[in-house]
Amino acid sequence: ARTLRIGLIPGDGIGREVIPAGRRILESLPSSLGLKFDFVDLDAGYDHFKAFGTALPEKTVETLQKECDGALFGAVSSPTSKVAGYTSPIVALRKRLSLYANVRPCKTVLSPAFKSPSTSPIDLVIVRENTEDLYVKEERTYPDPNGDGQIAEAIKRISTQASRRIATIAGEIAVRRQKMRQKANGQAVQKEAMVTITHKSNVLSQTDGLFRSTAREALSAPAFSSLKIEEQIVDSMVYKLFLQPQYYDVIVAPNLYGDLLSDGAAALVGSLGLVPSANVGEGIVMGEPCHGSAPDIEGKGIANPVATIRSVGCMLEFLNQPEAADVIYNAVDEGLREGKFTSPDLGGKASTKEVTDDIVRRL
Amino acid sequence: ARTLRIGLIPGDGIGREVIPAGRRILESLPSSLGLKFDFVDLDAGYDHFKAFGTALPEKTVETLQKECDGALFGAVSSPTSKVAGYTSPIVALRKRLSLYANVRPCKTVLSPAFKSPSTSPIDLVIVRENTEDLYVKEERTYPDPNGDGQIAEAIKRISTQASRRIATIAGEIAVRRQKMRQKANGQAVQKEAMVTITHKSNVLSQTDGLFRSTAREALSAPAFSSLKIEEQIVDSMVYKLFLQPQYYDVIVAPNLYGDLLSDGAAALVGSLGLVPSANVGEGIVMGEPCHGSAPDIEGKGIANPVATIRSVGCMLEFLNQPEAADVIYNAVDEGLREGKFTSPDLGGKASTKEVTDDIVRRL
Ligand SMILES: CC(C)[C@H](C(=O)O)[C@@H](O)C(=O)O
Ligand SMILES: CC(C)[C@H](C(=O)O)[C@@H](O)C(=O)O
Repeated sequence: ARTLRIGLIPGDGIGREVIPAGRRILESLPSSLGLKFDFVDLDAGYDHFKAFGTALPEKTVETLQKECDGALFGAVSSPTSKVAGYTSPIVALRKRLSLYANVRPCKTVLSPAFKSPSTSPIDLVIVRENTEDLYVKEERTYPDPNGDGQIAEAIKRISTQASRRIATIAGEIAVRRQKMRQKANGQAVQKEAMVTITHKSNVLSQTDGLFRSTAREALSAPAFSSLKIEEQIVDSMVYKLFLQPQYYDVIVAPNLYGDLLSDGAAALVGSLGLVPSANVGEGIVMGEPCHGSAPDIEGKGIANPVATIRSVGCMLEFLNQPEAADVIYNAVDEGLREGKFTSPDLGGKASTKEVTDDIVRRL
Repeated sequence: ARTLRIGLIPGDGIGREVIPAGRRILESLPSSLGLKFDFVDLDAGYDHFKAFGTALPEKTVETLQKECDGALFGAVSSPTSKVAGYTSPIVALRKRLSLYANVRPCKTVLSPAFKSPSTSPIDLVIVRENTEDLYVKEERTYPDPNGDGQIAEAIKRISTQASRRIATIAGEIAVRRQKMRQKANGQAVQKEAMVTITHKSNVLSQTDGLFRSTAREALSAPAFSSLKIEEQIVDSMVYKLFLQPQYYDVIVAPNLYGDLLSDGAAALVGSLGLVPSANVGEGIVMGEPCHGSAPDIEGKGIANPVATIRSVGCMLEFLNQPEAADVIYNAVDEGLREGKFTSPDLGGKASTKEVTDDIVRRL
């Protein structure tokens, strides 16, 4: 059996409640899959910053780089105002580990337990560039020469390399999804396999223009000839995401637009507590629920573990273990479809442990 | 009677069909309001660029600056790829005329004619900063020193002055809305008067941090003591806007976030064809529908004039003519509530002219 080494980084708040649920899922996978896991606990987060003066210890970065095949990241709290010396460890980790793609699948599962807010079920993936754009965090502030007060500037940076890489993985994901749908449905009528390139090149002709033209070029490769390639200006994309989300398949976007669009898509499936992600790099894949540290429910044992459990699936998918991923996705979907154990964010009463138990039983 | 001089800038596509509808509304206002209008036709747009080499003739800017109290702007087409020498005239106009606030009210009117996609009726205003942020359009491109391809950068600029100004008008709008609700409902249970400050200061601590702290300070003035002041990180804002839009009252945002949020809110009320805006400056107010030039339906006479007609109301509101504005808003709402004449974007069959006629009858 192959052994995968997984770094566990719970972070702050409910991160500490959902990451153990993710670990349990890996430990409970059927042995027929031929996978073994060992785990290493790693620190990061605002609490760690307050205690030790750093939000992302070097040891965490090094262990992930040198020892781990995969990782699970929980969530981190942000200070409400600027705190000297503090920077978000998740943004830093994505950069330090070159986790260049943030892949966020959003899928409606109809459940008797809660009403999906969207009029039609959706099944889309947002592929968010994860290393540049405004997230380079190069900012400066200077006195306003024309009046009192200050002026602050930030750099939005877009490169050919990062745009090509993200468009390419978006295309690969769309092709993989197309094949899976064909396998599942045979000749039945299917959703069109498609990548939608999102940008605002009507205003940002150089930066978003570069993203747009590079993505177009990358997606015109023969490997993607079975896909329809479309574009959508990002404000219209928000509009259409609300009004006809069922239309979309794979959406590829620069970092910041991807951040906003994936929260929008999460709303359409009912709760951020349902939406997983994988941060994909060359040598490592890090699963991460899309929700935050939720200080309001911290310690109550009622956090929804589904986003994390699905993130375990995403991690395995990008570690080339599609069968194990499917076992997890199906167990989660089955649980939601039955709707007996849902957490309070979905209007249910089940605890983190009860939801996890239910999914473990179905693996 | 006071005479207001109004510049009419139809622009491209359906802009040429909806701006005449806006003019008709002004001409049809009851004389008891004591208002007269005269009009001046002005050029701008992509078609004008193709014909004359400029998208925004100096004459248009000068006439607006020197002669006009108000203006109505239709829509402009964008070239699908970069065209040398072309820049968006609407972004340029907002800057040249110092139209510092883009005010976008979104209100659900329940209509038998179409189903509102949002679960609960909403009544909110997005107040979008209109002059800076990434819209300064300062970009550069250079060869990537670490590989093939290029790197493009854009500046996101935020100033104390612009942030203070936009927060202040957001506060003023919230107070005005609060008074109007009190007048309309007496002691009945009312929505809380509130301004929500939107930003991403957890990542952009200097730029969005400056927006956040300046807005907080401006809104702590005694004039706004009746308001609740809240903050929302912009990705969560997108999420909450979808899931509980009825909660919000006035949302204030930097330029780009405001662009995306207002398209999201437009989806929640059912169509961009319903959503108006006012671009507010020191000496002039420009009404502008939030939709684009819609080349797919251009020339068919079926564009929804409601966004423009409501924009006429917005323009008058910020020209200190609240009574005239109310006459228009009420006529539009009545028409929608009856639902006999709705355009195809709402699933109806009425032409631009029929919808306009119906509203004119109700003035
Ligand atoms: C916490 C924050 C820095 C982060 C981001 O903006 O990327 C979060 O919103 C996310 O989407 O993972
Ligand atoms: C056409 C475009 C430049 C414009 C903008 O981004 O401001 C539009 O989307 C708007 O919202 O008015």
